[in-house]
Amino acid sequence: MKPSLIAALSLWWLAPAAISASDPLPSWNDTLPKRAIVAFVERVTREGSPDFVPLPERIAVFDNDGCLWAEQPMYFQAFFIIDRIKALAPQHPEWETKEPFASVLKGDVKSALAGGEHVLLELAMATHAGMTTAEFEQIVTDWINAAKHPTTGRLYTEMVYQPMLELLAYLRANGFKTFIVSGGGLEFMRPWTERVYGIPPEQVIGSSIQTKYEARDGQPVIVRLPELNFIDDKDGKPIGIQQHIGRRPIAAFGNSDGDFQMLEWTTAGHGPRFGLLVHHDDAAREWAYDRESHIGRLDRGLDEGPERGWTIVSMKDDWKTIFPFQGRSSTDSAHRGFKKTPGSGI
Amino acid sequence: MKPSLIAALSLWWLAPAAISASDPLPSWNDTLPKRAIVAFVERVTREGSPDFVPLPERIAVFDNDGCLWAEQPMYFQAFFIIDRIKALAPQHPEWETKEPFASVLKGDVKSALAGGEHVLLELAMATHAGMTTAEFEQIVTDWINAAKHPTTGRLYTEMVYQPMLELLAYLRANGFKTFIVSGGGLEFMRPWTERVYGIPPEQVIGSSIQTKYEARDGQPVIVRLPELNFIDDKDGKPIGIQQHIGRRPIAAFGNSDGDFQMLEWTTAGHGPRFGLLVHHDDAAREWAYDRESHIGRLDRGLDEGPERGWTIVSMKDDWKTIFPFQGRSSTDSAHRGFKKTPGSGI
Repeated sequence: MKPSLIAALSLWWLAPAAISASDPLPSWNDTLPKRAIVAFVERVTREGSPDFVPLPERIAVFDNDGCLWAEQPMYFQAFFIIDRIKALAPQHPEWETKEPFASVLKGDVKSALAGGEHVLLELAMATHAGMTTAEFEQIVTDWINAAKHPTTGRLYTEMVYQPMLELLAYLRANGFKTFIVSGGGLEFMRPWTERVYGIPPEQVIGSSIQTKYEARDGQPVIVRLPELNFIDDKDGKPIGIQQHIGRRPIAAFGNSDGDFQMLEWTTAGHGPRFGLLVHHDDAAREWAYDRESHIGRLDRGLDEGPERGWTIVSMKDDWKTIFPFQGRSSTDSAHRGFKKTPGSGI
Repeated sequence: MKPSLIAALSLWWLAPAAISASDPLPSWNDTLPKRAIVAFVERVTREGSPDFVPLPERIAVFDNDGCLWAEQPMYFQAFFIIDRIKALAPQHPEWETKEPFASVLKGDVKSALAGGEHVLLELAMATHAGMTTAEFEQIVTDWINAAKHPTTGRLYTEMVYQPMLELLAYLRANGFKTFIVSGGGLEFMRPWTERVYGIPPEQVIGSSIQTKYEARDGQPVIVRLPELNFIDDKDGKPIGIQQHIGRRPIAAFGNSDGDFQMLEWTTAGHGPRFGLLVHHDDAAREWAYDRESHIGRLDRGLDEGPERGWTIVSMKDDWKTIFPFQGRSSTDSAHRGFKKTPGSGI
């Protein structure tokens, strides 16, 4: 064996130790949540321990909105819907006088959405169906690469939580397979989750509409239909997990009561389990909302989470950094780049 | 570095070369299908080549019945259904006089199934629903570990195709992620696909019934309901692939016209693509059936497959061995252990 090869192999041999010696979660303060995460991962990966979990069973599931990326002042997919309504308006002159489209086109999103969830569904169907899956993927890709958040002016994919990116990488480095389990649209997430989170499309579970296989110009296509297929929220999350993964996760991460059943299902299994809820309590660096919020309401989780052994993360106290663009810095300078427009109407 | 460590690393270093030097597909004859498979894999894995396919896009999909394991004299899941009807009969005295149950209980499966697909569906609902997912997993596990095929006397999991096991391993050794895409029941396959095929539950796509999340004795459970959710056959295969994987496979393997759309969807994509149909033409070592068969009918695939560039495998000419228990041997001795009972009534 050549000396250079021995040297190369020595480096390869030493690399894992070098990695684990550095802090895998640098954006987490050294508070209870970080310690609980590290203790859990060390517990399930220690070979020979009674709590050791074999590689194929190391399944971790993550909510997306409010857990991996922000969700204020409304779900980012709702901004996509509004932008699509505007883009499609020239082909739909009837929308000028037809609600909820008319209000959206006038810029009065609050009035448009006042009708409740079925209104959002109607807007979603008008913008998410009627094209092939390939066409929709392109529409989402073009939008996500260009659209800016109304109050920060950042790309939506910049408004991901740095501590959660580190957590995803840390779990994967320890043999976990990471899945998204989101109420958001399945095909709205897939075009960018691999690039942004390192999560490939086959590990994304979400809400979906029905589709149809057909031929167009002699080529097979899958066409998106304006009919609901599956809502991946609340009870739907464990159902979606069973349908898609077929194995109960050992760790679940969420932030709202829509994630309650996912955490409940995950942590009710035998052996070591981990449940975590991100609590949005940082009005300065992000948003503060919980029990009364229309978006990402967290009420039952705050009441029952602790007694169920779930870890509650205070974004204010437990996270050094929120967004990657804020850098890792003191609280004051961390506000840099994050400006909110109070009372922006949405 | 200790000499023993150097020796160990040398072995580790040499292992990949040693593996690739040996034949990864020893049960395949050196005929066109094997050459086409190897040429395709080398083409997509050669770095720097214009046909190189990055790791995450190396998705291969496999039908199960008649492609990975046998499907005669009827789908193996149908034997499971019949055994469950018999096991559940004491709790259902009304079945003694109610069709199709009465015929099944009298052992006259042919009459029971004469009513067509909706009869099989009725029998499936009576046996696949009404319990939790955990209970159903246990029922399937107990059955698959004990039930024997009526004509070979072998466990059903022994009736898998040795050449396909080698193909699965060969593709995975070359960075492919292998998925099952079967018309069979999702939760009927998952309890044993990892052990038998090396395919984890999250890479199994199949037909499914609806489920409900609820609490029982204070514990969350997922209950199986007697309502169809999804039929993963024909047009359903590309739809199931898009729903579950969200990325078009680059290779698809099937054996019947139920796989036609899966191969069509896969091979219509850009770049290098591979489609393969297993043709059951070996009456001596397995079964011979195609255009007129009620099970695994292969008609359109034989007509259009070749002009679409799909590889047709003759089990008789292209496979040295069919089942692992037959060993790798001459055609005559390969019949060992495979006895059919002609006219067995099913």
